[in-house]
Amino acid sequence: MNAEAATDQTARTEKPEKAGHGTAGEKGIWRIDADRLWDRLMTLARIGATPGGGVDRQALSAEEIASWHTMIDWALSAGLEPSTDAVGNLFIALPGIDRNAPPVLAGSHLDSQPGGGRFDGVYGVAAALEVLTTMAARGVRPPVDIVCVAWMNEEGSRFAPGMMGSEAFAGVRSLEDVRAVRDAKGVSVADALDALHAAFPALRRRPLGFALAAYVEAHIEQGPILEAQDHVIGVVTGIQGKKTFDIVIEGERGHAGTLAMADRRDALAAFSRIAVALYAQVGGHDDIVKFTIGRLQVEPNAPSVVPERATLRIDLRHPDNAVLERLGQRLVTLCETLAAPCHVSVTPLVDAPSNVFDPALQQAIAQAAERIGEPHMPILSAAGHDARHMAPLCPSAMIFIPCRDGVSHAEHEWAEPTHVAAGANVLLRVLLPYAGEGAQP
Amino acid sequence: MNAEAATDQTARTEKPEKAGHGTAGEKGIWRIDADRLWDRLMTLARIGATPGGGVDRQALSAEEIASWHTMIDWALSAGLEPSTDAVGNLFIALPGIDRNAPPVLAGSHLDSQPGGGRFDGVYGVAAALEVLTTMAARGVRPPVDIVCVAWMNEEGSRFAPGMMGSEAFAGVRSLEDVRAVRDAKGVSVADALDALHAAFPALRRRPLGFALAAYVEAHIEQGPILEAQDHVIGVVTGIQGKKTFDIVIEGERGHAGTLAMADRRDALAAFSRIAVALYAQVGGHDDIVKFTIGRLQVEPNAPSVVPERATLRIDLRHPDNAVLERLGQRLVTLCETLAAPCHVSVTPLVDAPSNVFDPALQQAIAQAAERIGEPHMPILSAAGHDARHMAPLCPSAMIFIPCRDGVSHAEHEWAEPTHVAAGANVLLRVLLPYAGEGAQP
Repeated sequence: MNAEAATDQTARTEKPEKAGHGTAGEKGIWRIDADRLWDRLMTLARIGATPGGGVDRQALSAEEIASWHTMIDWALSAGLEPSTDAVGNLFIALPGIDRNAPPVLAGSHLDSQPGGGRFDGVYGVAAALEVLTTMAARGVRPPVDIVCVAWMNEEGSRFAPGMMGSEAFAGVRSLEDVRAVRDAKGVSVADALDALHAAFPALRRRPLGFALAAYVEAHIEQGPILEAQDHVIGVVTGIQGKKTFDIVIEGERGHAGTLAMADRRDALAAFSRIAVALYAQVGGHDDIVKFTIGRLQVEPNAPSVVPERATLRIDLRHPDNAVLERLGQRLVTLCETLAAPCHVSVTPLVDAPSNVFDPALQQAIAQAAERIGEPHMPILSAAGHDARHMAPLCPSAMIFIPCRDGVSHAEHEWAEPTHVAAGANVLLRVLLPYAGEGAQP
Repeated sequence: MNAEAATDQTARTEKPEKAGHGTAGEKGIWRIDADRLWDRLMTLARIGATPGGGVDRQALSAEEIASWHTMIDWALSAGLEPSTDAVGNLFIALPGIDRNAPPVLAGSHLDSQPGGGRFDGVYGVAAALEVLTTMAARGVRPPVDIVCVAWMNEEGSRFAPGMMGSEAFAGVRSLEDVRAVRDAKGVSVADALDALHAAFPALRRRPLGFALAAYVEAHIEQGPILEAQDHVIGVVTGIQGKKTFDIVIEGERGHAGTLAMADRRDALAAFSRIAVALYAQVGGHDDIVKFTIGRLQVEPNAPSVVPERATLRIDLRHPDNAVLERLGQRLVTLCETLAAPCHVSVTPLVDAPSNVFDPALQQAIAQAAERIGEPHMPILSAAGHDARHMAPLCPSAMIFIPCRDGVSHAEHEWAEPTHVAAGANVLLRVLLPYAGEGAQP
């Protein structure tokens, strides 16, 4: 229960048990429909649902295509206008008066980790759709399009690395590069994209990288800070810098029972030496660095064969760009120093320094939280988001809501329904200034 | 060219360019047909051939079934009698006078590692078939069956652990246990065995574990000793002891960008700590220990997720049973000491102490090598073989031939044609005493 609800009796028309989070009456301030938003999130969670209560809806999968069908059905029933682009981003527009002017974007992504949860990504998309649906129901005709976006492959679990849709949109990565990536089964992004587009032949294609007026992304925090401080809205100040590396350690295979230890070039032994040093000297640098070896493939991975190759992915993050740079260099040096008698190659993939979100939008988020009576605080995003790639293009911002125990990328990821509604109401208020004369404050 | 050939001019009837390794004339000592044996090995190498010149013919695969068809065609055309048993061992008998007396067995296995070579296993089977074919062509009617055997799943790469066929035959492992094992795709041995048997509906079924008169296995050395000492025949004295373990390290998954290093229970970090200690304190114990982590699976193995589980297979070998026992205990202790804050479970799989082969058969092999003029030496087998499980059942022995650079379990595994022939000729001479009155010395 929040302060706003206590003073806004007239708003309690349809759902008195959830006052403060339901659609307000004509005389109250505008609010999204909290029940509809929650029901839609749970509907989307059934697409790719895992036995453990999570979601496996990886990029460009049959499950993601199914989630597009559902999103587009909802969009069309609200009078909104779906479209896509060459890299498989989904757009749902509340049409503006000037269709050619740079639109305002809000959204996130629909894809999940293989054992992901019901909120990461999909929350920001569903919240944006909910805001547009609320505006459309109120007859809003904004000066420019206000557009919900679902970026293609934020997670990077099926096709690596992630953020392909926003990177291709922002020109950080070429469409050609993106299309050439293959998943573990050998399917290319090109083929998967073509299948996606074939499933939606009627969708208009927007050009890649059209001009934007602003970008706002709502997301669960994926960390424990808001929950620990009992705050409902995080005003995201920026995203901590991130580097990722692909590392290949090449040794030589041999028979486990006959090849003398001294004669071995065991790729997994080299990996172990390197990893222990990296966990200590990079991962142990300070209290805020994040160092993860999330993926490791061993070849031939047979019980009685000395491994000839280890391929790993490293994820390194730090909010201080100078430290991030230094740790990246140390990482490369340690790999090269410790690999012998194997050979190592280190390929940098993502190299994204920390960024700062638009101060005016940060202020608008804080004011919106205050207006609806939700406690808010500034917070740095430890996780990466598509907003990182919008920030150089237009005024950009992010809204965080808490998630239980700070857990994400897990089946038991959870956000409270009241927090889900609060974040969407903040998003609504942040976007209202772009909605034109018909919108109430 | 060997000494025998130089004094055995009359034998050079068919293939003077390979004197000493071809089929001898009626007046010389009996020899196998070296060209036929080599051609058959190369024919079998085409079944499951890999682009790099090796073989991928894993247990109970379509490729192994295809190799059975080829073997059975050859057997029938030589008047030999194929049969199988409940665990998918292939038998090819030269029928004896007393069909109920314990037969003499010779053979090895047809399955390979996923990136295996053209000789490991298949050599011993093809050599045994060649010996029987030679005997059959000479009209031998032995007192008891002399039988070529191909044991099911020696390698253990598809279904782990290996030696399933010989273990089930010897009663070391129950048929039920074997049938319950599944491969990485979830296919059970039970289903794969049923498919194998369905492909050969006419094959007679022998009972599991029938009594044996003797067992002899020819094999490439899989080590560098014979080559280094310029010896062609290894008289195998025994097989070094082996232990294998399945180890599961359980941590907790989390977001790579948000979960503080101090709060992580990273299964791959725990693996790295444990592995470095094991390589040093177990793998570094002395010059003859062999310690291998051949297989490692990481879950969920996603780029930006802290790993929650690492599952590994350890292969530990030592010829001294007391040392092997001690190192096995140290391994368990190190895992348990270093796993925190993760949880570790260690499951012993194979526990096979060193064994000593039958002295009389060792002597027969040495004498056979001398008779055909091939330099020979005693040698301990560093690799495990099905013969380990026959040794407790009947007088057993192994014949080694060199392989280039000691390499096996690799696509470029290679044995010289003259060595291939020499090993089969030794096998022939070792089996002749079981062949009855019609056989010449």
